[in-house]
Amino acid sequence: MHNDLILNFTPTGMIPTKDMTPYVPVSVSEIVEDVHRASEIGITMAHLHARDAITGVPTYHKETYAEIIEGIRKYAPELVLCASLSGRDFSELEKRSSVLFLEGHLKPDMGSLTLSSLNFNKTASMNAPDMIADLASIMKKKGIVPELEAFDIGMINYAKYLERKQFIQAPHYFNLLFGNIACSQANLLHAGVMVNDLPENSFWSMAGIGNEQLKMNSLSIAIGGGVRVGIEDNIWFDTSRTKLASNSDLLNRIHTISKANDRKIMSPKDFRVKMNLEPGNGSYGRKTL
Amino acid sequence: MHNDLILNFTPTGMIPTKDMTPYVPVSVSEIVEDVHRASEIGITMAHLHARDAITGVPTYHKETYAEIIEGIRKYAPELVLCASLSGRDFSELEKRSSVLFLEGHLKPDMGSLTLSSLNFNKTASMNAPDMIADLASIMKKKGIVPELEAFDIGMINYAKYLERKQFIQAPHYFNLLFGNIACSQANLLHAGVMVNDLPENSFWSMAGIGNEQLKMNSLSIAIGGGVRVGIEDNIWFDTSRTKLASNSDLLNRIHTISKANDRKIMSPKDFRVKMNLEPGNGSYGRKTL
Repeated sequence: MHNDLILNFTPTGMIPTKDMTPYVPVSVSEIVEDVHRASEIGITMAHLHARDAITGVPTYHKETYAEIIEGIRKYAPELVLCASLSGRDFSELEKRSSVLFLEGHLKPDMGSLTLSSLNFNKTASMNAPDMIADLASIMKKKGIVPELEAFDIGMINYAKYLERKQFIQAPHYFNLLFGNIACSQANLLHAGVMVNDLPENSFWSMAGIGNEQLKMNSLSIAIGGGVRVGIEDNIWFDTSRTKLASNSDLLNRIHTISKANDRKIMSPKDFRVKMNLEPGNGSYGRKTL
Repeated sequence: MHNDLILNFTPTGMIPTKDMTPYVPVSVSEIVEDVHRASEIGITMAHLHARDAITGVPTYHKETYAEIIEGIRKYAPELVLCASLSGRDFSELEKRSSVLFLEGHLKPDMGSLTLSSLNFNKTASMNAPDMIADLASIMKKKGIVPELEAFDIGMINYAKYLERKQFIQAPHYFNLLFGNIACSQANLLHAGVMVNDLPENSFWSMAGIGNEQLKMNSLSIAIGGGVRVGIEDNIWFDTSRTKLASNSDLLNRIHTISKANDRKIMSPKDFRVKMNLEPGNGSYGRKTL
């Protein structure tokens, strides 16, 4: 059985700050360096958030994404790169879609697409149906593949609706995220329903928020799925929260578990073939048929 | 086994108009009349939305709710009445909570509390964590019991969080709603997870959106749950959509199925005892301990 493990690296996110952990990469050069190191350890793809150079807060500016993508591709020209289109801090379509207008060697292969509005711990995250349709339409036009973010079972049904309406097209890639307070919890029943409900021809990784990261990553490795891992989801290495994690620590642990489970990390090259992506090395996004 | 069926009647909602169906009660007198008729058929509680007298569009004004509640209680002084606090059309706390400030014989026993932000078919519905906490706090202070609205599995986890933080207190009453496009679907797996996840000491009814109403109502009758039914969720009597439903039609069908299943409709009186509500007849809301 050829069942390599998709390892989706999430180094930064929108929440962690240097005050919370010195290990979170924030500047362009720190993010590029962390992804470069990850690429040497072995990853399939990276999920990128950009931060403002001066303030360190999340930014939507495509110029910052361009610097990050250029920096990464200088060393890892085949790595599959996904840009965040999160509406957590920016609500307007123009801002959320900014990075989708990068071209040529700066174009991301994928863009994140959260499949409904939802509540995080302290805030609501708005992804109204029109916004989802607009982001998906721009991605389709640009040949950028949605990274489908499902936080609860209904969001998978919405992906099927988007497919029926031809906003998105298989093969799909899903992040299944567990442990958010108002969403699917990190247990076998919820995980089982999420995987059971996926549309045909879907690749998927499991992510756990905070202390749930290791549990859901390990469970996914055991059951044949992929892994989303990095400081974006959890700043701690241990569940008793005595040791802050570096991204390398987190990735090395996934490698250890994967190896012991006889599962090989899927190469960016293989993932590009499976997802009908261009081969990298200067050519990015989905192949035009 | 004493397992009477909670029948929660939802005559109006925010969506149906007279153009869609002549059967939807919109004016105060129409709503009062439909609930009065329902009370004679036999229901446990009513979930009320108010409409503006001139325009027929949804209104939050407590004066309109007061007229509806007064009209209903003239004929059915024990019926458990729940007012909608929906944020679908009104976002401000002041508007959403307006009806909670009615006092004495006008005070609703319960107020609806949606447990997260979510997407409906065409729009997002915002219920940020702060809004949920604020509405729950006002209800707690006023002795009004939340009608917990769960559209997906994560929302049940959020109810448990609210209970841990003492925003809400058992015994609970849940509406489990199925068939919304970005939420739990009307199937056994999703329904099973929702019921399985409920906190201790919870009463619950199942609701289905549109064509899913009869299926989920009937399933809930079979398995021992309650029923939320009415034109709010579905304007059609049949799934082939050839016949518009009256609220009496919908209620009579539930009575037929319940009777054949040897299940008795729970009286408002019994539900008041189980939910620690005042006895009605001039005294409403949760008993002070």
